[in-house]
Amino acid sequence: MAATILDPTILDRLIASCDEAWRAYTRHEFVLLLAKGELPEACFRRYLIQDYRFLIHFARAWGLAIYKSDTLSEMRRAQCLVAATLEVEIGLHIEYCRGWGLSETALQAPPEAVETIAYTRFVLDRGLAGDRLDLEAALAPCILGYAVIAAERLADPATRLDGNPYREWLEMYAGHEYQELARAAGLALDEQFVRRGGAGRFAAVAETFATAVALETGFWQMGLAAARAP
Amino acid sequence: MAATILDPTILDRLIASCDEAWRAYTRHEFVLLLAKGELPEACFRRYLIQDYRFLIHFARAWGLAIYKSDTLSEMRRAQCLVAATLEVEIGLHIEYCRGWGLSETALQAPPEAVETIAYTRFVLDRGLAGDRLDLEAALAPCILGYAVIAAERLADPATRLDGNPYREWLEMYAGHEYQELARAAGLALDEQFVRRGGAGRFAAVAETFATAVALETGFWQMGLAAARAP
Amino acid sequence: MAATILDPTILDRLIASCDEAWRAYTRHEFVLLLAKGELPEACFRRYLIQDYRFLIHFARAWGLAIYKSDTLSEMRRAQCLVAATLEVEIGLHIEYCRGWGLSETALQAPPEAVETIAYTRFVLDRGLAGDRLDLEAALAPCILGYAVIAAERLADPATRLDGNPYREWLEMYAGHEYQELARAAGLALDEQFVRRGGAGRFAAVAETFATAVALETGFWQMGLAAARAP
Amino acid sequence: MAATILDPTILDRLIASCDEAWRAYTRHEFVLLLAKGELPEACFRRYLIQDYRFLIHFARAWGLAIYKSDTLSEMRRAQCLVAATLEVEIGLHIEYCRGWGLSETALQAPPEAVETIAYTRFVLDRGLAGDRLDLEAALAPCILGYAVIAAERLADPATRLDGNPYREWLEMYAGHEYQELARAAGLALDEQFVRRGGAGRFAAVAETFATAVALETGFWQMGLAAARAP
Repeated sequence: MAATILDPTILDRLIASCDEAWRAYTRHEFVLLLAKGELPEACFRRYLIQDYRFLIHFARAWGLAIYKSDTLSEMRRAQCLVAATLEVEIGLHIEYCRGWGLSETALQAPPEAVETIAYTRFVLDRGLAGDRLDLEAALAPCILGYAVIAAERLADPATRLDGNPYREWLEMYAGHEYQELARAAGLALDEQFVRRGGAGRFAAVAETFATAVALETGFWQMGLAAARAP
Repeated sequence: MAATILDPTILDRLIASCDEAWRAYTRHEFVLLLAKGELPEACFRRYLIQDYRFLIHFARAWGLAIYKSDTLSEMRRAQCLVAATLEVEIGLHIEYCRGWGLSETALQAPPEAVETIAYTRFVLDRGLAGDRLDLEAALAPCILGYAVIAAERLADPATRLDGNPYREWLEMYAGHEYQELARAAGLALDEQFVRRGGAGRFAAVAETFATAVALETGFWQMGLAAARAP
Repeated sequence: MAATILDPTILDRLIASCDEAWRAYTRHEFVLLLAKGELPEACFRRYLIQDYRFLIHFARAWGLAIYKSDTLSEMRRAQCLVAATLEVEIGLHIEYCRGWGLSETALQAPPEAVETIAYTRFVLDRGLAGDRLDLEAALAPCILGYAVIAAERLADPATRLDGNPYREWLEMYAGHEYQELARAAGLALDEQFVRRGGAGRFAAVAETFATAVALETGFWQMGLAAARAP
Repeated sequence: MAATILDPTILDRLIASCDEAWRAYTRHEFVLLLAKGELPEACFRRYLIQDYRFLIHFARAWGLAIYKSDTLSEMRRAQCLVAATLEVEIGLHIEYCRGWGLSETALQAPPEAVETIAYTRFVLDRGLAGDRLDLEAALAPCILGYAVIAAERLADPATRLDGNPYREWLEMYAGHEYQELARAAGLALDEQFVRRGGAGRFAAVAETFATAVALETGFWQMGLAAARAP
C-alpha cells in the first residue's frame, strides 16, 4: 500500500480521506493496461503530448512557490524543482517522446486538452488563493501519486516487463531516484502542514487533495479516450 | 451578426481572429436545441448546476480585477460586476433553478465538472499571470458571447418561443438590460485594450480569447453530454 | 483598554503578542496631539493626503479578499468592504478634505509617501503570498486600531473636544457606526482564524500583525514629520 | 552616460523620462561618498543588512516571473536569476558581510527597514497587479542602476580606489561579469517591451520605473541616515 511505500504521515491521512478516488486514480485502467503492455499506443502518445504541457505549468507552480516562501530553505526547495523541471525533465521528456515518434513540433502542436487545463490551472488557483500549503497539497497527487503508481505496478504479478513498450516509463517512476524525490516531497508536505497550521488545516487541505486526485484521474481518462476517438 | 449586435471594435477583431471557433461556441448544438425548445431537460439542469459554480468564480474574477485596477473608475466597474453577481445574479439563479426543480442544496451538491474547472481557473490564471486586459479578454467570451447567442437565436426563424421551456432564458439574455450590460463590457474591453498597450497586445489577447471560446464550447458540450450519460 | 473596547479573542492575543509596538502605534504622539487639538495642521493635511492613497489600496486589498474567498459569505463580507470604500468612504474623505482646504486635485497631486507604499504593499504581498487569514491579519491593525485609538482618546481626560479642529475625526472613529464595523471585523478575524487553521497559525499571524502595527506607526510618524520639513 | 554604458533602447527612454530622479538615485550622496571612500561605515553596514533582506525578495520576484512566463525561454531566464540569487549571490553577500564584521545572525536580526519593505513590496505588487513587463520594469532600476552607478563612479576622476574600503563593492558592480548581466537584463527588458505591447505600454511602464527609481533613492537615504541616528 501507499503507506508502506512512502511513509509521510500527512500523505497517508490525505489518501485515507479520499480512499476510493485515490484508487480510481492510482489503479486507473490506463495504468493497469500500461503495466501489462496492453495500452494502445495512441493513448500513450496523447498522454505524452499533454504531459509536456503539464510540465510547463508544473514549473510555473514551483516558481509561484518560490514567491510564496517564507524562508530561504523553502525557497531553495522550490527552486530545485523548477531547475529540475526546466533544465532536466523537459529535455528528457522531449528525448523520450522522440523515441515514440513525436518530434518537438509534434509535441507542441496540439492544443492543451481540457483535462490538462483543468488540473494545471486548478493547482495554480489554489496556490494563489491559498498559501503554500494549499499549493503543495494540490501538487501532491501528481508527485506522490506517480511514485505510488509505479511502485504498486512493479510489485504486481500481473505486470509484464518483458517486451512491454512502457517498461522504461514504469522503471523510471519506480526507480530509486524518483522514489527518493517523492519521499522528499512527502516530508516537505509534512513540514508545510506543521509550519502552516497543522491539524486545523486538514479538512480544507484534504478537499484540495481530493479534487486534484479527481483531476489526475481525468488526465488518465483523457489519454485512454484516444483509443476511441482520433 | 455579432458585429451588428454589439459594435465594439476590439470584440469584432477578436471574433474574426477565431471565426470558426466562435461559431462552434455561439451556434453550438446545445444553443440551437435550446432555441427550438428541443434540448433535453437533463442537459439544461446540468448546465444550470455548473453555471451556479461558474458564477462564484466569475465574482472571484471581478474581485481580482478590483485588485488589478489602476484607477478608481476601473475599480468601480469591477466592483459593480462583483456586486451584481453576489447580490443579484446568484439570487436570481437560485430562484430560477428552483423553477426547474433544483433546490439550493441540489445546486451545490454535485462536484464541479472538469469543463467548469477548466474555464474558470483558466480565466483566473490569465488574470494573475497577465494584467487586467488579459483577465478581461478571458472573460469576454462569456459576457459578450451570451449576448450574441441570445440575440442571434431570437432573430432566427427556426427559433420557437411558444411553449419553449427555455424562453425565459433566451429572453433574459436577449433583453435590453443584458444587451446593455454586454455593450458596456465591449466598450470597457476597448478601453482596456487602448489603456494597456493597444495594437501590440492583439496577438496575445486573441490567443487568450480563442482559448476561452473553446472552453465555453466545452461548457455547452458538458451540458449536452447529460443527455447520454446520467 | 483594547480588550474591553473590542472583545474578539484573537485580536487580544495579537495585541498582547506585540504589546509595546501596539502602544507605540495607538498612543503615538500624532494621536495624542490630535486628541488635545495641538497637532500642527500641516501634519494632519499630510496624513489626509496619504490616507486618500491608502483607501485606494485598502479597496484593492478587499478586492483581493473576494478572489481569495472559499464561501459566498466570505465573498459578501469582502464585497461590502469594497463597496463601502469605493462608494462611501472615498467620497466622504474627499468631502472632509475639502473642509481642510484640500481639493481633490490637491489630494491626488503629491506622490505616495514611502510609508504609505510600505504599509499598503506589505498588506497586498502578505495577502498574495499567504491566504485570506494572512491578508486580514495584515489589515487588522488599521481597521481595529483606529477603533481602539478613537475610543481610548475619547475616554482620556487629557482629550479636549471643544474647539478641537480634529473633533469630527475623533468622533467619527469613536462613533457607534465605526465601532460596530470594527467589532464585526474582529469577529470576522476570529472566524478566519478558526476556519483557516486555528492555533497552529498564531505565530505567523502574530508576526504579520506586528509588522503591520509597526508600519502603521510609521504612517503616523510620516504625518508628524510634516511639522519639521515642508 | 548610461546610454553609452548600456545601450538597450527602452532603458534609455525610461531614464530620459525621469531624468532628474535617475540622477538623484545614481549620483546619490551615498554613492559619491562610497566612491571617495568617505562613507561612514555605519551607513554601509546598514545598507548591507537591508540589502540582505532585499535579495530574498529579489529572488521571490524572479520566482513570480517564472509563474508569469509565457514561453520556456522566459521561464529559463527567470529561473537563472533565481538560481544565481539563491545559490550564489546570497552566499557571497553573507561572506562579504563577514568581512565587515557582520555575522549571518547580525545580518538577520534587525527588522526590515520601511524603505526596504516599500521597494520590495512595490515590485511584487506591480508584478502581481500587472504582467511580466510591469514586473521587470519595477526591477530594472535595481539591476541596471547598479551597473550604471559603478561604471560611472569608476570613470569619475573624483573616485579613489587606493585604500578605499568600498573598492571591492565598486569593482564588483563595474566588473565585466555584472556589466554583462546588466546588459542581458537590458536586452530582456527590450524584448519584454516588444512582446507585451510595445509603444502603447510606455507611459505606464515609465511610471512604474520612476517610482522604483524613487524607492531605490530612498534605499540609499536609509543607509546614509545611519550616520546620524544609531
